[in-house]
Formats: sequence, structure tokens, C-alpha cells
Amino acid sequence: MAIPNKPVLDKAFRMIESRRGALLAELQALCRQPSIAAQNVGMAETAEMVRRMMEDAGLKAEIVPTGGHPVVYGELDVGAPRTLLFYNHYDVQPPEPLDEWTHPPFGAEIHDGVLYARGVSDNKGNFAARIQAVRLLREAAGGLPVNVKFLVEGEEEIGSGHLGEFIIANRDRLGADGAVWESGYKDAQGRPGLYFGVKGILYVELRVRGANRDLHSAGAAVIENPAWRLVWLLNTLKGPDERVLLDGFYDDVLPPSEEDLVWARGSTPEEEAARLAGLGIKQYLLGLTGLDLAVKSLFQPTCTICGLTAGYQGEGSKTVLPKVASAKLDFRLVPKQDPQRVLASLRDHLRRQGCGDFEVIVHGAEPAGRTSLNAPIAKVLIETAREAYGVEPSVSPTQAGSGPMHWLVDELGIPTGSIGVGWHRANNHAPDESIRVDDYFENMRHVALLLVRFAEV
Amino acid sequence: MAIPNKPVLDKAFRMIESRRGALLAELQALCRQPSIAAQNVGMAETAEMVRRMMEDAGLKAEIVPTGGHPVVYGELDVGAPRTLLFYNHYDVQPPEPLDEWTHPPFGAEIHDGVLYARGVSDNKGNFAARIQAVRLLREAAGGLPVNVKFLVEGEEEIGSGHLGEFIIANRDRLGADGAVWESGYKDAQGRPGLYFGVKGILYVELRVRGANRDLHSAGAAVIENPAWRLVWLLNTLKGPDERVLLDGFYDDVLPPSEEDLVWARGSTPEEEAARLAGLGIKQYLLGLTGLDLAVKSLFQPTCTICGLTAGYQGEGSKTVLPKVASAKLDFRLVPKQDPQRVLASLRDHLRRQGCGDFEVIVHGAEPAGRTSLNAPIAKVLIETAREAYGVEPSVSPTQAGSGPMHWLVDELGIPTGSIGVGWHRANNHAPDESIRVDDYFENMRHVALLLVRFAEV
Repeated sequence: MAIPNKPVLDKAFRMIESRRGALLAELQALCRQPSIAAQNVGMAETAEMVRRMMEDAGLKAEIVPTGGHPVVYGELDVGAPRTLLFYNHYDVQPPEPLDEWTHPPFGAEIHDGVLYARGVSDNKGNFAARIQAVRLLREAAGGLPVNVKFLVEGEEEIGSGHLGEFIIANRDRLGADGAVWESGYKDAQGRPGLYFGVKGILYVELRVRGANRDLHSAGAAVIENPAWRLVWLLNTLKGPDERVLLDGFYDDVLPPSEEDLVWARGSTPEEEAARLAGLGIKQYLLGLTGLDLAVKSLFQPTCTICGLTAGYQGEGSKTVLPKVASAKLDFRLVPKQDPQRVLASLRDHLRRQGCGDFEVIVHGAEPAGRTSLNAPIAKVLIETAREAYGVEPSVSPTQAGSGPMHWLVDELGIPTGSIGVGWHRANNHAPDESIRVDDYFENMRHVALLLVRFAEV
Repeated sequence: MAIPNKPVLDKAFRMIESRRGALLAELQALCRQPSIAAQNVGMAETAEMVRRMMEDAGLKAEIVPTGGHPVVYGELDVGAPRTLLFYNHYDVQPPEPLDEWTHPPFGAEIHDGVLYARGVSDNKGNFAARIQAVRLLREAAGGLPVNVKFLVEGEEEIGSGHLGEFIIANRDRLGADGAVWESGYKDAQGRPGLYFGVKGILYVELRVRGANRDLHSAGAAVIENPAWRLVWLLNTLKGPDERVLLDGFYDDVLPPSEEDLVWARGSTPEEEAARLAGLGIKQYLLGLTGLDLAVKSLFQPTCTICGLTAGYQGEGSKTVLPKVASAKLDFRLVPKQDPQRVLASLRDHLRRQGCGDFEVIVHGAEPAGRTSLNAPIAKVLIETAREAYGVEPSVSPTQAGSGPMHWLVDELGIPTGSIGVGWHRANNHAPDESIRVDDYFENMRHVALLLVRFAEV
């Protein structure tokens, strides 16, 4: 269907403006519905809300069972030559620690133009902006210039354990000429961020047990303390030089390519200083700055303690010898690093350190994913961002975070890029997660523009 | 006042038997009243209950304010030549983790002859058995053969921060010829345990901060992780050989004396095997057995991780870079080791390890305390235990635990020994703390006997 661009887009943009209240209320309703995959809270209810929003936009949508939380899949085939696929997830991170939220995590309150809610930035705001852009453009134009598919999973925050099965089982209907990944963030200078890759991840919990119950700590003179064993083991995984000590961990780590280095620009000293001040820290890790900092962030793997638990953690003192100690660890991996090989190396390492009795619980394993910035979707995303936002976007070959992008890029062969409603104070995975209301509508306009322009490539 | 021993004791014992129900109900009421010093729960209410129990036994009792939780002090001066002082505490450890209790921690339920309650073994059961023994002996005899003093503090579980001030301010009225310390435990063979010393303690919390909020763990590629810094620091405090690495830590540690070694007998292989099986572990630390095990337990200092806290600790995974990490540590110290010197050495160590920014919160500091087994109170305690229990007691020059015994022994110069209502499954400081009801009454008879015999030395 040929659509006269300018008048249709103008009409869609005016509809966005005139319906801000209703559009915002729909987003708030979605955010007020908890959907904590790790704790199995509100998942079915949220999947149904997502399905209804797809239907409201004219898509044929269904809730597809998996071995875990279902996928919500919707599509609208208008017979156009091009198809655009959107990847999102409706699950959110746990809101803990609750007492550190200024506003309730599932209140979706708006203060000074900022909407606070667990998952609003990661990832409900993005899904909502996209599906509403489809709905309004379709309404404005009486149709769409491009076929659209929405794949919204419910397990991204717990490792996308069933996404692969879904994609393999539905390979035939998932074909597309380009895909838009889950999210994107404006930086402190207001530049919208685009990225075309993600790191891989291996998330494990290590758990070691001592006696069969907590004991009085006087007993620690003669009874093994699992907390000490955990500390000693962790110390063998990474030292203060930040180098990961697993055998072969760096064997598959490649230096950044020429294309990587063209796009991975370091920040200015002023930008770095502003960001450090915002974080309340004096310097980045190892004193890195500029391009070195960007390269470390984007193209180097990590090993991070995400959680430590043992013994008494309340106020004051309790003299207890803990019966169990555990650590949650994530490894962020770069292309070619296989999470399964890293896991095998970790198990080997435990054995060699006399920690073969440690329990290893795998909470997620996903390789990295990358799309060339020469792909059509990359070019259109960058050009439309420039047009929609009126500033030069901040383009990155990859981001420091992870996600199951490889399923689209490598399994389905769909070039993929990402942009979204976020900002530099999004606080994803942290208290006071938020987006700016204006960014939400600006991104909605960008998606409408993208739908129109992608039809033309 | 001369008391004909045998008939009076027989009468007192008969009264204990005939009033078991009421005596038990009084103990249960005391245990049902929470008194968690660390969380400031129920302290004033419990102090008042303790005061009333002293008054009921005929003592002149008062609640003495301190800078913290008050001391309850009571005395009965009958003009006897000998005075016996009892030390107890009415505060208890926090009951957490609550979900690991089989019976509610403040329910004081009795199942199969075992009374379950936080604090029943440490230390309310001991206080109750002693004050009831005084009450019943006095009733049976129409008086007491010995003056008694009861010092019951409310801050033992949080480091006895104001006990020293109280003792120094009340030095004149606290004089006694012997003192009975807080507790004692029967072993698995049914032998009542006596001890005549405690280790010292330094309890600190180390806290290190990173960014001013929890961040997405993708940021860990370039932002310092306080959990790693904590692990690296802890690793420099003690290695897998269990040797504490603080400068000068062992300078004041003396080998056990000849008297120590006379009394510190190792357990038999069968006893050790039974205890290991009960704990669900295969061996003691470093494979120690027999006398080596006893020496390590009683005469060697320790450094113990009592708690570790950082980041996400819930179910499943959360990819978070923690903003803060902390460890609760106790050092159990032997005679001559000064907790303040150990603390200074720890602070030095932090500085030298580049951890001068770690916060050090001191939750308790107390030197060790010891009484010679040749002191009259020691001899009478051992002899009366033999008589009351009808078995050879298990005598130890010291215990592996700590307490402010030095205030009595070193500040007031009162030789001090300890025996009590506990058993080998007391679970002090742990879920399902308990005593056996029969042990409670047996100990009450022992205290009655002690009151009579100590008058004769």
C-alpha cells in the first residue's frame, strides 16, 4: 500500500499529541501490573494485557505457551514487500530493595515529567511506544506500509530460557527484513542512543554448605565456615586487576574491529565528569577514560558479583557460624565467547580449587549478538533517529548489557538494531527505574517514522 | 544462719517436684516475652519481669538505668559469712532466620520434653532456675545460708556495652566470694559441663560503598564493585590454613598451661563421630581430632565471617552491580589478646590493603576471662555437680564462646565458674534453641545444693 508520507505522518503525530492522556494511562496500567519473572508474579495477567494491546493495534495476537512464561506473539501482514519485527519482553526485574524506591515500584507515578516504575524503561515503555505507533499510524493512514511482527517474551530478565525453542519452532512465521531490539537511552546531552549488538551472559549462583544448621560462631574454631570458603573461591576467580582467572577465558576475545572503533567514540572529559558525579564516584574502574573506557565497556568481558549472602544480615551483631553461603555472579561475554565453554571452565576451576562440592545453579546463558552498521535496518534506524530527534544520535556497535539478540541475528538471520524510550537516569534493574514522559512520545513518533521509511528501502 | 542440710535440701527438692507445673509456666512466660537487644524489642518489659521474679524470691531488686538497656540488680543479705553472685542476662539473640524454626521462637512450646524458645538456653532458663532455687530453698529453710546477689544485664548479646560502667559504679555492693557465670550444657553423654573461662571477642562490621545506587550489572565493566573489594579484603584477613593474617595477631597467644592441659581432655573418636554426624559434616576443621581439636577450640583465637551482604539475594537472578557490600566478623580472643589492639591492627591492615575507605563498625569488644580451677568456687561447683547429677561432670578451663566475664574476674576479683540448664542440642544463636525440661529442674536442684555447700567453704 502506497502511503503519502508527510500528511499521514503529520496526522499520526497530531493524534499522538491529542491522545497523550489516554496513551499515558495505558502505559501506566501496564506498569502497575507487576510481572516479575524471577518470582513468578503477575506473568499471566501481563501477557494478557500485552495481547490485548496488540489486538487493539490491529494485530492478530496470541499467547504461546512455552515451558516457562509464555511468549506473546502478534503480526499484521498487509502484503507489503518489507517486514519489520519488534522484539520486546513483558517481564521485569524484581523491585528489591523496596525501601530504596522514592516512589512505589508498581505505582507508575509521574513526578516532574518522569514516570517511575519497575520495568517502564526495561522494557514496557518500549513495547507500548511501538505498539501505539503501529496503532496510530494504521489509524492515520487507513493501513500500514510495512508488515509488522511483535515478539514479546516473558523471560528476558531470567535468561530467556525458552525463547530459543520458540524461535526454532516458529522459524517460518518469524522471517523479517529487519528487527528492532528492545530498548535505547538518551544520554545526558539528549542524544538518542542506538546500538547494534549486545554482550552474551552466563549467570550462575554458587552455593556452599557447612554444618546442617546455623551454629554459634564460637564453633567456628573447629567447624568449617562456608562463608570463608566462598570468599576464598571468589578470590581465585578475579583479582583487583579485574582480570578473570578462568582457564582460557580470554582465548576467544577479539580486539575491536575497525568498524567497531569508527563508531565506539569515547566520551569527553566533561561528559565523563558529569556521569561520575551522578554516580557519586571519583573515577572509572582502573582509572580508565576516553576511548579506553569505551573499549573496556563494550568489547571486554566481565565477571561481576551481583549478590552475596551468608549468615546474619540484620541490624547490630549476631555471632553465628552460617550453614550456607552463596554468590550470584554474572559473566558478560563478547562475540565468540561461548557461555557453555565458560561454564565448563568454571566447573573445572571449582574442582581444581577444592570446591567440587559447591552447587552451581545456572540462571542464564546466552552468547553475544551483533549486526553490521552497514545493514539496511542500521542505516534506516540512524537516519530516522536523526530526523525524528533533530540531533545527531549516539551510535554504538554494541552495548555493555546482554540479551538474546543472537536468536534473531544468528538463528533467524535478521539484522537488528535498537533504540527506545530510555534516558540516562533510567535506573534499569535498580530502584527508581524511570522514563521521561516526553521521551515516550518522541520515541513513539520515531517508530511511526521508522515504519514509513523502512517500507521504502 | 545454720541450716541442717539434708532435711532442708530434701524439702526444697520435694517442693521443686510438686511445683513443676507452676515453675515451668513462669519460665515459659519469661521466654514468650521477646527481649531482642539488637533490635530493641521488649527490653523494658522483660527487665520488669526479671525484677519481679527477684522480688518473689525475696531479693531487694531494682532496674538500674544505663546508657543502653538497663541492668536488673537484686540482692539478699542474710548476714552470712559468704556471698555468692550470679551473673545472667535477659536479652536474647535475634530469632532470624524465622522460617527455619520448627516451633515459633517466642512460643515456648514443649514437645517431647523439650522447650523451644529463643533465649531459653541463652540465658533465661539459667536465670529462672537460679532465682527459683533461691526462692524455694529460702522457703524450705526459712532463710538462706549464704548472701546472694543477682546481676542480670540486658546487653550481653550486643557486646555488654554498659556492663563495665555499671560494675565500676557499683563496685562496693558487688563484692562476693564466688560467682556463677551464665550458662552450661550437658554433652551427648549426659555429663554436665562446667567451665571457668571465656574467650574475648571483637565483633566488627566492615562496609564498603561503590556508586550511590545499585546499577545494572552491565556497568560493572567500568564501575568499581564493592562486593569484589570486600572479597579481596576478606581474603587478606585469613587464608584456607585458618591463620589470621593481621600483624601481631598471635604475639600474645600463649600455649595452653599445664593446668589447662590437665582439664582440657579431647573427646573419644566415638563422641567426635556422633557430634559430626549430628552436624552433618565429615570432619572438623583441618581434620583435627582429640586433644588437638580441644586445644584449637579452647585456646586458639579465631576470625569468623558471621554475615555477608551484597546486592540481590532473592530467588533466581538479578543482574545488579551492588552499591554497598558488608561483612560481619568476629574475632574470638584468648587471654592477653587485647581487643583494642586487634582493632587497631585491623584498621592498619585495611589502610595497607587500600581499604582505608571501608567503614568499620564495632559491635562489641571484650577481653577473655579465666578463673583457676583451684579457686574455692571451682572446687565447690565441681563437687556439687558430681553430687547433684550423679555423674562425673565435664570440666573445661574455658569455653570457646565469649562473654564479659573479665569484669567479674579481673575488675572485681571474684573467682567465677559456670554451669547451667543447657544440653548438646541447645542451638544457641540458631533456630530451634531449646532446653530439656528435666535438665531445667535438675539444674535447679544443683543450684540449691550449691547455695548450701558454698556457705560451708
